[in-house]
Amino acid sequence: MTTEPTRTLEHFPNPRPGRDFEVRFETPEFTCLCPKTGQPDFATIRIRYTPAERCVELKSLKLYLWSYRDQGAFHEAVVNRILDDLVAAIAPRTMVVEGDFLVRGGIHTVVEARHP
Amino acid sequence: MTTEPTRTLEHFPNPRPGRDFEVRFETPEFTCLCPKTGQPDFATIRIRYTPAERCVELKSLKLYLWSYRDQGAFHEAVVNRILDDLVAAIAPRTMVVEGDFLVRGGIHTVVEARHP
Amino acid sequence: MTTEPTRTLEHFPNPRPGRDFEVRFETPEFTCLCPKTGQPDFATIRIRYTPAERCVELKSLKLYLWSYRDQGAFHEAVVNRILDDLVAAIAPRTMVVEGDFLVRGGIHTVVEARHP
Amino acid sequence: MTTEPTRTLEHFPNPRPGRDFEVRFETPEFTCLCPKTGQPDFATIRIRYTPAERCVELKSLKLYLWSYRDQGAFHEAVVNRILDDLVAAIAPRTMVVEGDFLVRGGIHTVVEARHP
Amino acid sequence: MTTEPTRTLEHFPNPRPGRDFEVRFETPEFTCLCPKTGQPDFATIRIRYTPAERCVELKSLKLYLWSYRDQGAFHEAVVNRILDDLVAAIAPRTMVVEGDFLVRGGIHTVVEARHP
Amino acid sequence: MTTEPTRTLEHFPNPRPGRDFEVRFETPEFTCLCPKTGQPDFATIRIRYTPAERCVELKSLKLYLWSYRDQGAFHEAVVNRILDDLVAAIAPRTMVVEGDFLVRGGIHTVVEARHP
Amino acid sequence: MTTEPTRTLEHFPNPRPGRDFEVRFETPEFTCLCPKTGQPDFATIRIRYTPAERCVELKSLKLYLWSYRDQGAFHEAVVNRILDDLVAAIAPRTMVVEGDFLVRGGIHTVVEARHP
Amino acid sequence: MTTEPTRTLEHFPNPRPGRDFEVRFETPEFTCLCPKTGQPDFATIRIRYTPAERCVELKSLKLYLWSYRDQGAFHEAVVNRILDDLVAAIAPRTMVVEGDFLVRGGIHTVVEARHP
Amino acid sequence: MTTEPTRTLEHFPNPRPGRDFEVRFETPEFTCLCPKTGQPDFATIRIRYTPAERCVELKSLKLYLWSYRDQGAFHEAVVNRILDDLVAAIAPRTMVVEGDFLVRGGIHTVVEARHP
Amino acid sequence: MTTEPTRTLEHFPNPRPGRDFEVRFETPEFTCLCPKTGQPDFATIRIRYTPAERCVELKSLKLYLWSYRDQGAFHEAVVNRILDDLVAAIAPRTMVVEGDFLVRGGIHTVVEARHP
Repeated sequence: MTTEPTRTLEHFPNPRPGRDFEVRFETPEFTCLCPKTGQPDFATIRIRYTPAERCVELKSLKLYLWSYRDQGAFHEAVVNRILDDLVAAIAPRTMVVEGDFLVRGGIHTVVEARHP
Repeated sequence: MTTEPTRTLEHFPNPRPGRDFEVRFETPEFTCLCPKTGQPDFATIRIRYTPAERCVELKSLKLYLWSYRDQGAFHEAVVNRILDDLVAAIAPRTMVVEGDFLVRGGIHTVVEARHP
Repeated sequence: MTTEPTRTLEHFPNPRPGRDFEVRFETPEFTCLCPKTGQPDFATIRIRYTPAERCVELKSLKLYLWSYRDQGAFHEAVVNRILDDLVAAIAPRTMVVEGDFLVRGGIHTVVEARHP
Repeated sequence: MTTEPTRTLEHFPNPRPGRDFEVRFETPEFTCLCPKTGQPDFATIRIRYTPAERCVELKSLKLYLWSYRDQGAFHEAVVNRILDDLVAAIAPRTMVVEGDFLVRGGIHTVVEARHP
Repeated sequence: MTTEPTRTLEHFPNPRPGRDFEVRFETPEFTCLCPKTGQPDFATIRIRYTPAERCVELKSLKLYLWSYRDQGAFHEAVVNRILDDLVAAIAPRTMVVEGDFLVRGGIHTVVEARHP
Repeated sequence: MTTEPTRTLEHFPNPRPGRDFEVRFETPEFTCLCPKTGQPDFATIRIRYTPAERCVELKSLKLYLWSYRDQGAFHEAVVNRILDDLVAAIAPRTMVVEGDFLVRGGIHTVVEARHP
Repeated sequence: MTTEPTRTLEHFPNPRPGRDFEVRFETPEFTCLCPKTGQPDFATIRIRYTPAERCVELKSLKLYLWSYRDQGAFHEAVVNRILDDLVAAIAPRTMVVEGDFLVRGGIHTVVEARHP
Repeated sequence: MTTEPTRTLEHFPNPRPGRDFEVRFETPEFTCLCPKTGQPDFATIRIRYTPAERCVELKSLKLYLWSYRDQGAFHEAVVNRILDDLVAAIAPRTMVVEGDFLVRGGIHTVVEARHP
Repeated sequence: MTTEPTRTLEHFPNPRPGRDFEVRFETPEFTCLCPKTGQPDFATIRIRYTPAERCVELKSLKLYLWSYRDQGAFHEAVVNRILDDLVAAIAPRTMVVEGDFLVRGGIHTVVEARHP
Repeated sequence: MTTEPTRTLEHFPNPRPGRDFEVRFETPEFTCLCPKTGQPDFATIRIRYTPAERCVELKSLKLYLWSYRDQGAFHEAVVNRILDDLVAAIAPRTMVVEGDFLVRGGIHTVVEARHP
């Protein structure tokens, strides 16, 4: 039985809305496809944010990140896309998403996007 | 003979109240239960604070942290709870609590809360 | 809903019985109680073995290791006990179990037992 | 345009057949699916061998390892399968394949198989 | 067949022009010649920038960095030259180029230049 | 023959009084006694300061730190005491003293005090 | 109240006498005095052994190691002395004691003794 | 003025021919060209040997390794070639040459050849 | 033939005077003598600066640092002296010199001086 | 007042002659001169030995190693010379001397000699 990846990011109410606190996620388990060559790309994704009303639910985040497995995505675009989707889902006070991609052509690439 | 864990955080008078100084604690020996699945979670807890009138007593801190062993606690909530309890006990000038949780679903999570 | 820890180690048939190969597990998520003081102990458990007819199933291994959470266990005894239980369950050609315990009284302890 | 992954491992003649020498490959870019849950697994694959008449061609090895991306594969089975396929392709004097899988259920697993 | 190195830095439109984000590249594969002695020098090149309208294309960046292989270049001059060329090609909001050169005469040298 | 430890911190004139510069010391060779239990405690002491008219003499600093070997001293108090003694001896422009204590009760403690 | 250090090494029966297993201890909390100069020396002590009938009890080992705090002891002699005392107390099948001393005169010294 | 790279490995008499001793060299400054694509490859070269009558002269070794800068060379072949040339030049009792190549196609390759 | 060390720091014109950039040097090859005991001291020297009109020439810097080999020099004085000499030679916009000295009397010392 | 370096290696009687034990020394504080160029060379010296009747005295070893400061010495020769001198002084059962020299011409060199 397969758990289908999904674009839906679930959330739960911030358990301590009166205080600014920070949540940080890191996963080395991100893969997508290069839109030019169709070859797989691999990255570590790091997310940190200060919640406002909502926190992102961990399991739905995992499924959301899986949903890129069969999609073509440029480095610069995919990091901004993840940030846009998370901002749309939970409207955080601040958020940073970093994609740290494995070496291609001898070059190691990191893309980091911030909101707001 | 068992030392019962306890929620009581003991304190002693700040030995140098006229100066701002910082105390930092770190322990890899924190475990609680996931409220959803009942499975154990593990974390390293890091605390740093600048005392005002009172310092937290080390042994009572250890017993306090043990008291989570059989309790269900979400990552975001437990870190804020520890901060609330410590602030209530010693009223520090500033305090930061960080919970650095072991990997679940391929994702490593850190929660960091600050007072004030 | 809680997944109950259990002493039952499940197994599956060795997928390549004609060849000697090695499986290694490592988990920092082991905790038990000190039989003298009742205080929690924490360890990293490392297991490596060469299967004969059976391989140990990963999820049952996780549940098995959880089952020590509320039990008193001396360092030297618990590592030998885990080895005995695994040998009884899957009869491996060779197996090594290592318990790497966090500092007590300023001393870091490792216990390593081998079969046969 | 997509480069299709393939099961064909290409080879070239050993440039120095009169001497025993060792070749070692390591790649963190391996992913397959868990046959039970359909969830992605990630591993670093390490291969080392002493060639006899043939050496494995690097680009075909890369494409071969990609071919597991959409396949269900148990940890113990996939490492033995990679070793079988490489041995069939180049008949090395000796070969070792190691799969070093990312954490599942709090447990880090490594499988290592040797030929002969 | 040889891919000729080239001085032409290609670019593509910034996929998210309304947001400030950062791109970081690092490659240990840079070599040029010492203009005084003709001896090879080796460096790791690190580039980070915030794009305005254009992003630098990764493959053309690789070819551009190769183009120094047969050229004499002083440490201080070559890092500024790379920054000048990249600024001319993509007009970034901000950019930093760092050349981290291997030991010569027992001394390890790093040069870091910033725009604007 | 024994070199007696001493509380006297010797000093020499700042060799470059017209410039702000920083001196940093670090020693893992600090031990005192726990005032509650009489058990030995161990710490790394880090000191950094910007001298005004006087610099602390290295050998007297070593003897001064030895003088705690047979004294009971709480973590928070001893670090403030070292800072007080050094400030009294050399009246630096700024000074920071950090005591980084080995694990007690599973908890690693650092105390850091600043002047002014 | 002070816990007096002591030369008595306590032991308990080997919980699994039919099997060869290894116990390893490591502590950075060892200090003695240089017999020539009276100055404190600091070392990390590492002990590993295979028990026969008896295992060394951890708390008595800690108190035993403290007993050197006020004693003069040459590096080469103290490591052999610890090994002699442990062998006399528990008669292990094999034992190794290593003393890893902090730098004196710019030289880092390690002494390692084995039984039998 | 340029120092021309050269294939000539110079040597000097073993200063202690009556004893077996080992010399180890390591340099991250090796580059050659891929014979298929013409693209530069980079490697760390490690050499260790026990001299018989002759030792290799360090400066000529450096110039010898430079001589590959403009040559096409497959990984497996170039390491064996370096070993052959060194053995021809100094006839060592034993020698090992290791080429540790930077990532290509996501795969890190090491080749190690031994004499005799 | 011996290259004589020298106090003359040579320079060359800043190749990019219109831009603020930073040059960093690090060498573990610094030794001088303790003025009190005549014993050798060893340090890593780190220099970083932003050039104005002139850059320091690397080979003359190496020879300059050698010139301390037979000179007595206190830690605090020698770092300020190197900074003074470099500032006199090249008049940089900003410069930092750090001397990181090996352990004496169990204490590791670092001195860091800044201009202006 | 200067402590003159000296070639005399002092010794003391082995405190435990009935047992084979190992002593290991390591110092990063070794410097000599290149006999060809007169330039300083720097090395870490590692010595390990099993004493027979005599142990080498630490302070005399330090002074002995200083005595190379103003002497020309080739890498391969100096390591064998140190081994010869130590063997002559204390006649150990076994001894290994390793000289680990800092980079020259981009190449890091280690020489290791063994007795007998």
